[in-house]
Amino acid sequence: MSPEIEALIADRRNRLAMALDRHLPPAEHYPARLHQAMRYASEGGKRLRPLLVYLGGHALGTDPRRLDAAACAVEMIHAYSLVHDDLPAMDDDALRRGRPTTHVAYDEATAILVGDALQALAFQTLAEDAAAGLSAEQRLRMIGVLATAAGSRGMVGGQAVDLASEHRQLTLAELEALHIHKTGALIRACLQMAGIAADDASPAAIEALDCYGKSVGLAFQIQDDVLDIEGNSATLGKTAGKDHASGKSTYPSLLGLGEARRRADALFARACEALVPLGAPAEPLLAYTESIRRRAH
Amino acid sequence: MSPEIEALIADRRNRLAMALDRHLPPAEHYPARLHQAMRYASEGGKRLRPLLVYLGGHALGTDPRRLDAAACAVEMIHAYSLVHDDLPAMDDDALRRGRPTTHVAYDEATAILVGDALQALAFQTLAEDAAAGLSAEQRLRMIGVLATAAGSRGMVGGQAVDLASEHRQLTLAELEALHIHKTGALIRACLQMAGIAADDASPAAIEALDCYGKSVGLAFQIQDDVLDIEGNSATLGKTAGKDHASGKSTYPSLLGLGEARRRADALFARACEALVPLGAPAEPLLAYTESIRRRAH
Repeated sequence: MSPEIEALIADRRNRLAMALDRHLPPAEHYPARLHQAMRYASEGGKRLRPLLVYLGGHALGTDPRRLDAAACAVEMIHAYSLVHDDLPAMDDDALRRGRPTTHVAYDEATAILVGDALQALAFQTLAEDAAAGLSAEQRLRMIGVLATAAGSRGMVGGQAVDLASEHRQLTLAELEALHIHKTGALIRACLQMAGIAADDASPAAIEALDCYGKSVGLAFQIQDDVLDIEGNSATLGKTAGKDHASGKSTYPSLLGLGEARRRADALFARACEALVPLGAPAEPLLAYTESIRRRAH
Repeated sequence: MSPEIEALIADRRNRLAMALDRHLPPAEHYPARLHQAMRYASEGGKRLRPLLVYLGGHALGTDPRRLDAAACAVEMIHAYSLVHDDLPAMDDDALRRGRPTTHVAYDEATAILVGDALQALAFQTLAEDAAAGLSAEQRLRMIGVLATAAGSRGMVGGQAVDLASEHRQLTLAELEALHIHKTGALIRACLQMAGIAADDASPAAIEALDCYGKSVGLAFQIQDDVLDIEGNSATLGKTAGKDHASGKSTYPSLLGLGEARRRADALFARACEALVPLGAPAEPLLAYTESIRRRAH
């Protein structure tokens, strides 16, 4: 990755951190314990989804100020989903991002409420962040896209299917449908929101970005499955080998490790090809995608 | 209540039922079990909040078609909050609206996801329901109001304080702050959304409706506390005497039953006085408020 692209990504990470800090209620505000826990749950992580918003927007020539609310909102939705997924009644996980999960660090009731409040805050952020210069129509379309991707026809629906599929062998088509909902929908929404924020991008450019989003979401998931087998808890920052232990169907369990790796690589390649028509402005997104493809955790 | 007002309220209940049916995903759509459970959780109830939206809008002369999305969205938020409040880690209740709670009828993980999906659907409904003839600015303002009322500075914040207050004696000021967040914020949002939907209402009329909303929210809560002591599970449709059994502070426990009743009556009277400047169009809201004041469950 070139120093320029590294600096761009560092700048966007910094923008996201500042936007989150601006939109999350101060930790000392009533009710303080809930607000502390909301901040705890929003810390750390790869910031994958907000970076897709920013770098997708960069590929369309969009000022990052127009993307702050969307980047912030999608990270809040992602953070809330992790808090709820980790609950004892769901995946029952004690470790996340190298730290105790929210229900372990606080308590189960607080973790449920943290997730609920982060989801509300995501939509509040898109509705109220007027600094961005987006039109009301653009912000409304972003809310529609994000809510659809987060809801029962997207992320939450995928999680419901995932839980119902434990201890049952899925077909490859069923596994793909599950992941297109569980993780794919929200990742695709990042690129769609970047497209909505662009005032003068061509329909073809917006379509190219959406095409990238569809392929890269599934590629990330297959890679996650592979890393869950190859990795260990220290580098992953979460409990390793858990999918296998819980009897979940994964790409490696259905295809074998080698074929799963090849499939992820093919999807990464297809995602990057989709960006070709966007030319030089898409280079940071390409470089970032390549760095994710090579990650060990 | 006059036959005309009864017919108006029946019509609005019917509108709400149709709007909910239109916006909730069909029960057979993937993932079917989640969508069935979302419908289960949205059935029944007094429909208090949507009726406040519709009758508040009626008081300002607003076409009910402009209020369907807001009425639907606030009921989805309310329904999700009940599903999560009833969870074992929260209030741990098995009975709601005379039926098993969602986590009992389905399972705990499904109940968490039902709540999450209903919240997303509430904002999706406001963002995408274009049939109403509202401007993008109006729908965006509604989303901001509803998200703020539902989040950590409103309903969810109040629930967090409520859980932290069990087995601890609150002051009257603390109890009031709790309920202004936990139930008051969402009720006030109903009237605020009605105000936003009105194209040509005066600021004074919108302010009068907000004033009503602030008083009536607290009145309902004190009345709930009173009914929890006076009622039994059969008429309440939920477990009676639960607040007392769990050592929660309530208005009757702090003030005595007689003084709590007097305080609720005074707040109902103040709410109704606020409506006087709105004249005849506010009569259905007045009559409905009176019917709520007289309810036995």
